Amino acid sequence: MIKDIILKAGTELKKQYFSLSSCSEKERFDLVSESDLYIEKMIIDDLTRLYPGDSIYSEEAGEIGRGAEKCWIIDPIDGTADFIFGVPYFAISICCEINGEIHEAYVYNPMSDEMYWTNRQEGISYLNGKPIKVSDTSEIRDSLFAFGFSANYKNINRYYDEWGYAFDNCKKGMPLISPALTICNVARGRIDAFIDFGCSMEGQAGAALILKNAGGTLYNYNFSRYDHRNKGIIATNGKIDLKENRRDNK
Amino acid sequence: MIKDIILKAGTELKKQYFSLSSCSEKERFDLVSESDLYIEKMIIDDLTRLYPGDSIYSEEAGEIGRGAEKCWIIDPIDGTADFIFGVPYFAISICCEINGEIHEAYVYNPMSDEMYWTNRQEGISYLNGKPIKVSDTSEIRDSLFAFGFSANYKNINRYYDEWGYAFDNCKKGMPLISPALTICNVARGRIDAFIDFGCSMEGQAGAALILKNAGGTLYNYNFSRYDHRNKGIIATNGKIDLKENRRDNK
Repeated sequence: MIKDIILKAGTELKKQYFSLSSCSEKERFDLVSESDLYIEKMIIDDLTRLYPGDSIYSEEAGEIGRGAEKCWIIDPIDGTADFIFGVPYFAISICCEINGEIHEAYVYNPMSDEMYWTNRQEGISYLNGKPIKVSDTSEIRDSLFAFGFSANYKNINRYYDEWGYAFDNCKKGMPLISPALTICNVARGRIDAFIDFGCSMEGQAGAALILKNAGGTLYNYNFSRYDHRNKGIIATNGKIDLKENRRDNK
Repeated sequence: MIKDIILKAGTELKKQYFSLSSCSEKERFDLVSESDLYIEKMIIDDLTRLYPGDSIYSEEAGEIGRGAEKCWIIDPIDGTADFIFGVPYFAISICCEINGEIHEAYVYNPMSDEMYWTNRQEGISYLNGKPIKVSDTSEIRDSLFAFGFSANYKNINRYYDEWGYAFDNCKKGMPLISPALTICNVARGRIDAFIDFGCSMEGQAGAALILKNAGGTLYNYNFSRYDHRNKGIIATNGKIDLKENRRDNK
C-alpha cells in the first residue's frame, strides 16, 4: 500500500530532521541533499517491489522504466528550506499518473502527522481519514492568501507587480514555500488561494488532485487550463475571482 | 512543574489546531482568538494553583497579581497566523522574570513535539533533553537568515531598506513569523540570524534566554543592549557581524 510506503519514509524523514545539527551551513545543505536522496531511494525501492511494471519519476533519479502505463511521481522533500531552517512544514508527495492524468495522490507531513490523500474514482479528498473541503470565502478582502516566495527581493517584487491588488487588499497574506502542503491547506479550507510562479511538477501534481476533489480550482500560472506538468500554479477555493484581480498596481 | 503545564496546554492546542475547520474566514479568526484565550486561561489557572504568590503577565489577561517578586510571562500561541493557515510552526512560551531578568524559560511546539528549555543557574539550553548550541557560520554569504515578515509589502520594504545587504548576499533568507520558535532555531544552529522589528515581549523573552545559553547574541532592534521588554529583536549566533551589515542599499 502506498500509505504504508509514505508512512515508513516519513518516520525516517522525521528522524533525519531531528538529527540535522551541524556547525556549518555547508554541512547542513549537504546533509539535506543526503536526506533527499535517502528518502527518494527508500520510496523508489518500495514502489519497485510493489509495482515492478510501473515507471517512476523523481527529481534526482529522473525517469525509471519509461513507457509504462502508470508513472509514480515522487517528491521526497517538498519544502527543503523549511527542513533546513527547522520549520516542520515539509512533506513527502507520491502520486500516480496514467495517460497524463493523476489518478491517486498522497501528501504527508511527518512532523505533524498530517496525511492527505484522494483518488480519481471516488472524487473525495481526506485529511487523516476525514473528508475535507475548500472554504466559502469569495471576496479578496476576506481572504487568506499564500504566495510562494522566500526572502528573495526580486521574486517578491515579481509577485507584487503581478498580484499587488491581492497583496494590499487580502485579509492576510503569507509567504509559504511548500507547494504540496500549501495546496492541501487550500483543499482543507485553511487558505483561500495560493499563487506560485515556480513550483515544479513533483511538488504540485498530487496536491492538485487533492484540491480538485475538495472543490477547488486550479490554473497554470498564466490562467490556461491546468496541466500538472507545467511549472507554477494558481490554486483557489473556486469562489474567489483571481482573474479579475491579477493586474499591475503600478 | 512548568513542563507538565506546557505539555498539557500543548496537547489541547494541537487538538484545537486540527479542529479549526470552518467555512468562512471570519469564523477562522474568531476560533483562533477563542483558542488563544482558552490556552491562556488553562496556563494561568495551572500557574496560579502551583505558585499562588507569583504574578503573571499575558497579552490578553494583562498583569495578574502585580508587584510579586516573580512574574510568569506567557504567550499562549506565538505564531497565530501559522496556526490559522495550517502551518505547524507555532509555540507556547512560558518564562519566569525576577527583578527584570528571565530566570527560566520554556518554548514548546506541540505539533512537532519540540520542547526547548533553559534556566539561568545552569546556563545550558536543551531541545527535547539534548543540549543545543548555535552554528559556527561567520560570513553573511554562508548564512541562513530569517526575517519577521508576512506578505505585507510595506513591512517587506522596511526590512529591505534596512537589511538589503543581508537579503541580497546571504545563502538563503526566509520570512518566519513565530519569533519564539525562530529564536530557538538560531539557538539550535539551524538558522544563523533572525531579525524582527516588531516582536513583542511575550514571544521573545523566553526564547532569548534559550539563545543566550546556547551561545548566541541578542540586541534590541536598534543594536542597544538587549532588554526583553523592548519590541523587536536582532538574534544571532554571535559570530556574524550584523552591525557592519545593516545599511541602506539604496
